[in-house]
Amino acid sequence: MKTETNFSSAAVVGAGSWGTALALVLAESGLPVTLWCHDPAQAAAMATVGTNEEFLPGIPLPTVVRVTTDIAEAAAAPLILMVPPSNFLRGVAARLAAAGPAAGTVLVSCSKGLEAGTGLRMSQVVAAELPACRVAVLSGPSHAEEVARKLASALVIGSDDPDLARALQQVFTLGWFRTYTSSDAAGIELGGAIKNVFAIAGGIVDGLGLGDNAKAAMVTRGLAELTRLGVALGGRPETFAGLSGVGDLIVTCYSEHSRNHRVGESLGRGLQLAEIQAQMGHMVAEGVPNAASIHGAARKAGVETPIIDQIYAVLYQGKAPAAALAELLARQPRAESDREA
Amino acid sequence: MKTETNFSSAAVVGAGSWGTALALVLAESGLPVTLWCHDPAQAAAMATVGTNEEFLPGIPLPTVVRVTTDIAEAAAAPLILMVPPSNFLRGVAARLAAAGPAAGTVLVSCSKGLEAGTGLRMSQVVAAELPACRVAVLSGPSHAEEVARKLASALVIGSDDPDLARALQQVFTLGWFRTYTSSDAAGIELGGAIKNVFAIAGGIVDGLGLGDNAKAAMVTRGLAELTRLGVALGGRPETFAGLSGVGDLIVTCYSEHSRNHRVGESLGRGLQLAEIQAQMGHMVAEGVPNAASIHGAARKAGVETPIIDQIYAVLYQGKAPAAALAELLARQPRAESDREA
Repeated sequence: MKTETNFSSAAVVGAGSWGTALALVLAESGLPVTLWCHDPAQAAAMATVGTNEEFLPGIPLPTVVRVTTDIAEAAAAPLILMVPPSNFLRGVAARLAAAGPAAGTVLVSCSKGLEAGTGLRMSQVVAAELPACRVAVLSGPSHAEEVARKLASALVIGSDDPDLARALQQVFTLGWFRTYTSSDAAGIELGGAIKNVFAIAGGIVDGLGLGDNAKAAMVTRGLAELTRLGVALGGRPETFAGLSGVGDLIVTCYSEHSRNHRVGESLGRGLQLAEIQAQMGHMVAEGVPNAASIHGAARKAGVETPIIDQIYAVLYQGKAPAAALAELLARQPRAESDREA
Repeated sequence: MKTETNFSSAAVVGAGSWGTALALVLAESGLPVTLWCHDPAQAAAMATVGTNEEFLPGIPLPTVVRVTTDIAEAAAAPLILMVPPSNFLRGVAARLAAAGPAAGTVLVSCSKGLEAGTGLRMSQVVAAELPACRVAVLSGPSHAEEVARKLASALVIGSDDPDLARALQQVFTLGWFRTYTSSDAAGIELGGAIKNVFAIAGGIVDGLGLGDNAKAAMVTRGLAELTRLGVALGGRPETFAGLSGVGDLIVTCYSEHSRNHRVGESLGRGLQLAEIQAQMGHMVAEGVPNAASIHGAARKAGVETPIIDQIYAVLYQGKAPAAALAELLARQPRAESDREA
C-alpha cells in the first residue's frame, strides 16, 4: 500500500481543546483543515464566533479551518487526526469508517487512554474500525492552551513506517511546534495513557499539602510503575524515558492546565468525584475512566502497580485520599533498585 | 575493618539549611547530635536563639542538638554527616582529618557537586582526606525546609557495603523520612550534582515565560543528558531513573524552595548573576560553581551535553538566556531515541 506523504489537506476529528489546537497547528503548517465537531450547537457557535469558546477560549480560528458536523467531509481528507475523548473513540471511528475514507488514508491517533473493556490502545481501536487506513500516533507534553498560544512544545510521532513518520514530522514542524520520530507507537501511546492516573495521584499530594519532596518521590515511583507496566503491555523502556513518557508525566503532574491534576487536587481537598466532574462540565479528565481500564490491564498483565491500585480505590471504591497516600508513603523501605531488593 | 553499626551518637559538619535539617532527623531518630558550624557568630546565635535563623528560620533546634565550632567534638562521633557547600568540602574534610577521628568512623557525604579542578565526587574528596574512615552517601529529592517541617521525604543511601547501608537505613527511617539503599554511590552523587545545572535551565524557562510544555521538554532532554553523562562518569543507568536522579531533578526544577531554580528564574527575567548572588547572601546555589566543574567533566569525558553547555555559556560567557534557550529549543528534530537517529 503506497502511503500518501504529500498531504494536500487535513481533517481533525474531535473539536475539544486538543483537537482545536492541532487544527491551528495544521493551518499554520499551510494545510486547509476540516475540523469535525460532534455537537451541532458547538459547531454553530464556533462558526459564528470564530473561536472555540467552550474548550479554547479567546483563540481565533484561522479561516482555513472549516468547522463541520458532517463526518464525510473529514473522511475525504488524506490526513485525519483522531482526537475524541478515549471512551467515544470507537463510536466516532465507526462513523468515520462508514463515511468511506480512501484506502491508504493516514490516520493519526491523538487521544490518550486504553479502551474500557478491551484494554486496547487508541491506535488499535482506530485500526480495528478502519483496517484499510494507515495509523500513526502523536503524543507528548502538550497542553492545548499553550500550543494554541504558540508557546514552544516538543512531541513524538510514532509509526513503524519510517517514511510515514518523516512525512508527518514535516507537517508537524513549526518554529514553536517540534516533533521527534519513533518506531515505538505502542510505547508512546501507553505513556500518554498511563500518566493520567499518576497525574491524579500528584494532584492528591498537592491537595493534601504533603509538599514538594513527597510529590517528587511519588512522581519518581510513578515513572518506575509506568515503565514497568508500559513494557509489560508492549512498549520499549527507552520510550518511557522520553517526551511521551516522563515528559508527559511531568507536565501533567506539575501544570495548572491539567484536568487530571485538578481532579486529584480537588479530591485531596475533600471534594467528591461527582461534584468535581459536575464542575468540569464537558471537559473530560481522561484519568478517571483510564484508572479503571489501566487498572484492569495491569491486573491482566500481572504487573505490580501500587499507585494505580490506590488511585483506582479512591475513584471507584470510596477510599479516602489521605489513607491511600499514607499507605503509599509508608511502604516498607528496601533497596531502591528491584535488582538489589 | 569492622564497621560500627550501632551508632551511639552522631555529628553533622556544616550548619546550612540541609545540615541543620539532617541534625533534626538524627535527633528524632534518638541520637545525641553535635552540629559543627564554621562561623562563630552563627554558632553563638543558634545557641542563644535556639533556631538557625539564617538558614532554617523558625524551626526550633532540639536540646539534644549541641552546636559547636570545635571540629574535634564532631570528630569524636562514630557517625559524621558531611554537609558543607561543595567548594568548601575539601578544606573542611582536611580540618576534620587533623582532629583525628577513629579508624572506621562512618562518614556520610551529603553535599552535592563535583570538585572544581579535579572533577571528583564529594565522597571521593572525603575519602581522599580521611582514608581510614568508611564513606557512604545520602541524596534524593529533599528540600531542607520541608524535612525540617516533617513533611514526607524519601531518599537513597549509597554504599558498596550492604551492612553499612542497612545500618544507616535504620538511623534514617522515621515515619516522615524514609531511605532506600543502593550499591551505586557514584550514580547517586552524580545525579544530585548534575541536576543542579538543569535546575538553572528550568528556572530560565520559567523566567522567560516559555510555558509548561517547553519546560517539560527541557526537563526530559535534561534527564537524558544527565543519564548519558552520569553513566559516562561511572553511575548505573537505573540509578538516574530513581529518587536521586529524576526525583531530585524534578523537585529542583519545579519547587519554589530551590535556590538553583531561583537563580535561573532571575536570569530569565534579565537580572545579572552578580546581583542575584548578592541578593542570596550566604545561601549557596550549588548549580553555579557546578556548571563549571560539570561542564569540564563532560568535556573531559567526551559526552555531548547541549543543555549544560548553554547554561555554562550563560553563567560564564555572558550569553543571553533567551538566546541560549532559543538554540536549545530550535535543535534539528530527529528520531527521539539515539538508536533510531
